[in-house]
Amino acid sequence: MIVLVINCGSSSLKYQVLDMQDANNYSLLAKGLVERIGLEMGEVTHRPAGKDKVVIDKPVPDHTEGIKSVLELLTDPKCGVLKSLNEIQAVGHRVAHGGELFPESCLIDDKVIEGIESLCELAPLHNPANLLGIRAVKTLLPAVPQVAVFDTSFHQTMPDYAYMYAIPYECYENYRIRRYGFHGTSHKFVAQKACEFLGMDINNSKIVTCHLGNGGSVTAVLNGKSVDTSMGFTPVEGVVMGTRCGNIDAGVVTYIQEKEHLDVSGITSFLNKKSGFLGVSGVSSDCRDIVNARDGGNYRAGLALNMFFHSVRKYIGAYSAVMGGLDVIVFTGGIGENDAEAREEICRTLGYLGVEFDSAANDGVRGEDKLLSKPTSKVKVLTLTTNEELVIARDTMHLVRG
Amino acid sequence: MIVLVINCGSSSLKYQVLDMQDANNYSLLAKGLVERIGLEMGEVTHRPAGKDKVVIDKPVPDHTEGIKSVLELLTDPKCGVLKSLNEIQAVGHRVAHGGELFPESCLIDDKVIEGIESLCELAPLHNPANLLGIRAVKTLLPAVPQVAVFDTSFHQTMPDYAYMYAIPYECYENYRIRRYGFHGTSHKFVAQKACEFLGMDINNSKIVTCHLGNGGSVTAVLNGKSVDTSMGFTPVEGVVMGTRCGNIDAGVVTYIQEKEHLDVSGITSFLNKKSGFLGVSGVSSDCRDIVNARDGGNYRAGLALNMFFHSVRKYIGAYSAVMGGLDVIVFTGGIGENDAEAREEICRTLGYLGVEFDSAANDGVRGEDKLLSKPTSKVKVLTLTTNEELVIARDTMHLVRG
Repeated sequence: MIVLVINCGSSSLKYQVLDMQDANNYSLLAKGLVERIGLEMGEVTHRPAGKDKVVIDKPVPDHTEGIKSVLELLTDPKCGVLKSLNEIQAVGHRVAHGGELFPESCLIDDKVIEGIESLCELAPLHNPANLLGIRAVKTLLPAVPQVAVFDTSFHQTMPDYAYMYAIPYECYENYRIRRYGFHGTSHKFVAQKACEFLGMDINNSKIVTCHLGNGGSVTAVLNGKSVDTSMGFTPVEGVVMGTRCGNIDAGVVTYIQEKEHLDVSGITSFLNKKSGFLGVSGVSSDCRDIVNARDGGNYRAGLALNMFFHSVRKYIGAYSAVMGGLDVIVFTGGIGENDAEAREEICRTLGYLGVEFDSAANDGVRGEDKLLSKPTSKVKVLTLTTNEELVIARDTMHLVRG
Repeated sequence: MIVLVINCGSSSLKYQVLDMQDANNYSLLAKGLVERIGLEMGEVTHRPAGKDKVVIDKPVPDHTEGIKSVLELLTDPKCGVLKSLNEIQAVGHRVAHGGELFPESCLIDDKVIEGIESLCELAPLHNPANLLGIRAVKTLLPAVPQVAVFDTSFHQTMPDYAYMYAIPYECYENYRIRRYGFHGTSHKFVAQKACEFLGMDINNSKIVTCHLGNGGSVTAVLNGKSVDTSMGFTPVEGVVMGTRCGNIDAGVVTYIQEKEHLDVSGITSFLNKKSGFLGVSGVSSDCRDIVNARDGGNYRAGLALNMFFHSVRKYIGAYSAVMGGLDVIVFTGGIGENDAEAREEICRTLGYLGVEFDSAANDGVRGEDKLLSKPTSKVKVLTLTTNEELVIARDTMHLVRG
């Protein structure tokens, strides 16, 4: 089954075309990116498998035009990968926020669109963009079934005491304020992959998945189900991130508002865009730049890294307490897959859990699936590449096949 | 040495008079409370050891008058405990916020008063009240040395990566925003007491102290020093408390501000006074009322309790990761000393750390010092009564004796 996977942002869209034999046998036919949608000049980057990359500068006034460009490239005689659009049997969309309405991926119909719309308030930047993509495909490929895969669904198994905040209960009833968590497809994917890799029964497993990138979250996966996660009502909570503050005293939020005379949108931007690695180091939001600066003697860069390690370490410890033990730690995401120092530093204090980290195995490992703990280690440590598009394609295939 | 210990709030003051032979040998001569200072009618409650309690209703216009009343009662022929005020050799004050200026208790002189004053912005409700008490004693007992014991000092040993927030570094430089932590005297006291109780060397110990009451905080005490603590820049951060929210997504703070049209002081009051047990349960801020409601079938009361247990459990796990292991868990404070269910529930998932909880030993224990883990338990669990006034009296005695 040929599945087109679409991930729409407010002014961009990413896509992949996968030929799915079954959940584990598939080939990537093409992937690409449309940027600067709605601006004077847009850019389409198309990467067909086994052929040269194509970059086209042209105005892309809206998401419908963006997807039209993608469909043209996919069937282009030169750089295309399909003979006709009829080959596309299903389209899977990443949707940011499924709230409590969507505990699982689902086939898109008018009721689902309404549901996603009703959640726009909880994800004002993302859900409207996702809807633009869904509606564009509905216009351009009206006969093709579409599936929505939500970033939040995997975390809908959290117990109430893990997802509620200790504020008046009416905030939950009236405003749906609770922990939702994000990166769900990634956490789900690497937890499953870890069990396959280790030959473990997922129904009898205690896994902490660390998806660490520019955004980062840590999840407690007990017997294959998310029981707690570090991102919350919004993606600003949790570990130290590229530009997001992670955990912070609520009293700091209000103190800064007063001191800096910031209104709600001002402090939101401050904590989401000027904080994290960038704010502490003053150097960059990118972990690699921070490492370089630290190595050059920059105190604040070293501090930012230490704060990051500390924040992840605390979650691994906390989630061991939540699950009553720990079998596996998984690192994934840009930092988790590529930053050997981060993986080692985070595990440095975890010997008490039964972690025997294998520095030699870890050194220099980038973008591989690999065991990083010694054979005798009670707790296994893995670095695994994540593949959110594959999860979307899998769920799409399963739902469309029925 | 006779030491008067004073703890001033904005409209109240608590006091104790202790006769200190040395750090561990002392007797409590009297204690009491002055309430409704500055209101039309105040109330003084005086409890001399071995004599009947005295309650006097009278106007107490300010803290100086309040302390004057206390001094009169202390030397009263009937209910007094001192022959003359000359017997008071030192006065120790609890001071809420010592910032980074006061990593230890200190003798009060004009420079110290200036320092405490400079920190009023960080503790606008408490430091000014503490200063009123210090100045009142200066007026009434000008020859008696005074000592300040800070709620924050014990936590000044935290490493930078534990006390910094991942926000622009300038917030630390310009506004002194960082984690300070509170309940320091209590955490210090019970960590020491735990080592004495168990015959352990504090210089080789990994202890998590849980001070759980209407306010609550958890501290990682490594080799006798605080290396991380759950309260932060303000006492609103950390575990679920009576009326405080504890940890919360910064995005929730701003979302509620918008939804409820709250300004900074409105949201601050919302998160400090209407949240926690009270907000979730809708029943009460008092743990005992919540337990009763839960036992009567109230879902929200049960939820509030489960959230509280979960929040403390996560800290014990996180701080084990911070310290690289765990030797002792200490419960203290109103809940920690008196609520057997809370102690057991919090420890329920901690078997993986080597905690063997002894339910029989725990059942019904209130206000005692007792071992709650089985003899074979790798991690020892204790409930210990705290005594912040004794810490203040000890520090006062040591500093005045020189």
